[in-house]
Amino acid sequence: MMFRRVAFIGIGLIGSSLARVIRRDGLAGHIAVAARSPDTLAAATRLDLADSVTTDPAEAVAGADLVMICTPLSAYPAIARAMAPGLAPDVIVSDVGSVKSCVFKDLGPHLPPGAHLVPGHPIAGTEHSGPEAGFAELFQNRWTILTPAEDADPAAVDKVAGLWKAAGSLIQMMDAAHHDQVLAITSHLPHLIAYTIVDTATDLATDLQQEVIKFSASGFRDFTRIAASDPVMWRDVFLQNREAVLEVLGRFTEDLTAMRRAIRRGEGDELFDVFTRTRAIRRGVIEMGQDDVPEKPEGEV
Amino acid sequence: MMFRRVAFIGIGLIGSSLARVIRRDGLAGHIAVAARSPDTLAAATRLDLADSVTTDPAEAVAGADLVMICTPLSAYPAIARAMAPGLAPDVIVSDVGSVKSCVFKDLGPHLPPGAHLVPGHPIAGTEHSGPEAGFAELFQNRWTILTPAEDADPAAVDKVAGLWKAAGSLIQMMDAAHHDQVLAITSHLPHLIAYTIVDTATDLATDLQQEVIKFSASGFRDFTRIAASDPVMWRDVFLQNREAVLEVLGRFTEDLTAMRRAIRRGEGDELFDVFTRTRAIRRGVIEMGQDDVPEKPEGEV
Repeated sequence: MMFRRVAFIGIGLIGSSLARVIRRDGLAGHIAVAARSPDTLAAATRLDLADSVTTDPAEAVAGADLVMICTPLSAYPAIARAMAPGLAPDVIVSDVGSVKSCVFKDLGPHLPPGAHLVPGHPIAGTEHSGPEAGFAELFQNRWTILTPAEDADPAAVDKVAGLWKAAGSLIQMMDAAHHDQVLAITSHLPHLIAYTIVDTATDLATDLQQEVIKFSASGFRDFTRIAASDPVMWRDVFLQNREAVLEVLGRFTEDLTAMRRAIRRGEGDELFDVFTRTRAIRRGVIEMGQDDVPEKPEGEV
Repeated sequence: MMFRRVAFIGIGLIGSSLARVIRRDGLAGHIAVAARSPDTLAAATRLDLADSVTTDPAEAVAGADLVMICTPLSAYPAIARAMAPGLAPDVIVSDVGSVKSCVFKDLGPHLPPGAHLVPGHPIAGTEHSGPEAGFAELFQNRWTILTPAEDADPAAVDKVAGLWKAAGSLIQMMDAAHHDQVLAITSHLPHLIAYTIVDTATDLATDLQQEVIKFSASGFRDFTRIAASDPVMWRDVFLQNREAVLEVLGRFTEDLTAMRRAIRRGEGDELFDVFTRTRAIRRGVIEMGQDDVPEKPEGEV
C-alpha cells in the first residue's frame, strides 16, 4: 500500500482513471472523493471508486497523505482555500492540470508549512469527459510530467512518481515554465486549431454544414474528435497559458501565411518540400510508440 | 461479372483497395494494371491484384470496358494522351482523384467520341500509401461522390456506382465544382493545417523538437498522422483546387484571429462559447457513423 488515504478533488476522465488504478492495485487504504456535483459523486460511488464522498474539500482531505486535484484549472484557488483547514501538515498535494506554472501561484500560498507540492501532468486522454469515461489503462506507456520546485522534498516526489509508474506511465521531470512551452506546441495549439476549424464549419449555411459532416471522413473528422474535448478545461488552459500559446500561434500563423502564398503562386516544389519533411516527425512519433489512440476496453466499467 | 476488363492506371492505397474488392467478388474477367514504377507492378502481381501488368497505359486499356485512374492529379494529362490510342469507343473512364473540376479539363479532350467520363472520389483513406497499404474494407460505409457531367450516359454512371456499392460504399451524386468546395473544407483545409503545424514543429531547435515528439500524445500526434499522407497527391490537390482552398483558408484565418484576440484579452466566455458549439458538429459526425478510423485488418495482404 502506497498511501493511507488518497483524496481526489474532482474525478473526471483523468481522476477516475487514476482512481481505478489505485483500486485495482490496492494502493490506498481509503479513497475519498470531493466534487461539486452530486451526480459526479454518485457516479464515483456506483463505479466503486470512492470509500467516501463529499462536496466539501476540507472533509475529503482530512487525514489524507495524498491529495490529487483533478478539476479544471480555474477551480484551483477556491479549492486551495476550501481544503486548507483540513490538510495534514505532511500532506503531498499533486494535480493533473494541463498548465503547470499557475499551480504554484494558485495552490502554493494556501498550503500549510510542511506540505509538499508536486504538480503533475499525465500526457494522456480521450475526447470523452466525466467519471464514466475513465479506464485504468489510460496511462499505459504514456508520459507523466512532474514539475516540482527545485527545493521539493525528494521523498514526496518519489511517492507521486511511484503512483504514476504503477499506472503504467513513464516519468519525466521538468521545469514548470518549460512544460508550459512544450505543451503549448504539442497540445494547446493543436486543440485551438481543431476548435477553430470546426467552428469555421459551424458558420457555414445549414445545407453545406450537413455535407461537411457527411463527408468528414476525409480529414475533418479527426479535428472534430479533438474539438469535442471538455470546454471548461480548455477555456482554462488558454487563459492560464496565454503567453506561450500566443507565441506558438504566432509561429504557426507565419507558416500558414507562407503556405497560402505558395498555393496562390502555384509553387508546387515548395508545397512538396513541406509535405515531405513533415514525415520525419511522424516517423519519430511512431518510433517513440506514441502513435496509438487509447480507447476504453470493451466491457470495462 | 460487372466488367470484361478493368484497367487500373496507378495502383496505390485507393486503387489496390478497389482491385481487392474486384478480385474478392469476381467483378471483372481481367484486371490490367499500368504503373510507371516496376516495383509497383511487381507488388500488384505479388498481391494477385493484376492479370496483366505494363508500364504502357495504352496497352492496359486495350479492350477494357472500365478504366480507373488512381494516380496523383498532375499525371492526368500525360495519362490521357498516352492511353487515348488504346481506348475502346464505348469505354467508361473514371478516377478517384480528390479534386473533380480539373478532371474534365485534363481528360475530356483526349477521350474518343462515345467514351463515357464518370469522375469519382471515394471519401476514404488512411495515412499509408502504396499497393501494400490497401484493403478491401476501406470503402465500407464510406461515401463515394460521383461527378459526371449533366449529359452523361446514365447506364455508364450506374455501372460505376454499382462497383462502389459492391465495395460497401454509399453513393452521392454531385456537381464537380460543388464537390471541390465541400472537400476544400472537409479535407483540403484540414490537411493543409496539419501539414503546417507539423512543419512549425520541424522549425524548432532539435532538443525541443524531440520533446514535441515525446509528448505528442496530447493532441499533436493526430496532426502528424494526417501530415503523413502522400506528398505528391497533396501537392496536386492544392495546385488543382487553389481557389476553393484559398477561400476557406481565408475564413479559417479570420476565425483564428478572433480566437487569438479572445486569448490575448482573456475573454473566457468567448472561448467557452466556441468550445461548446463545436460539439454539435462532433455529434453530427458520430450520428452519421463517420467517426471510426478504418484500419487494415490483421493478416490481410
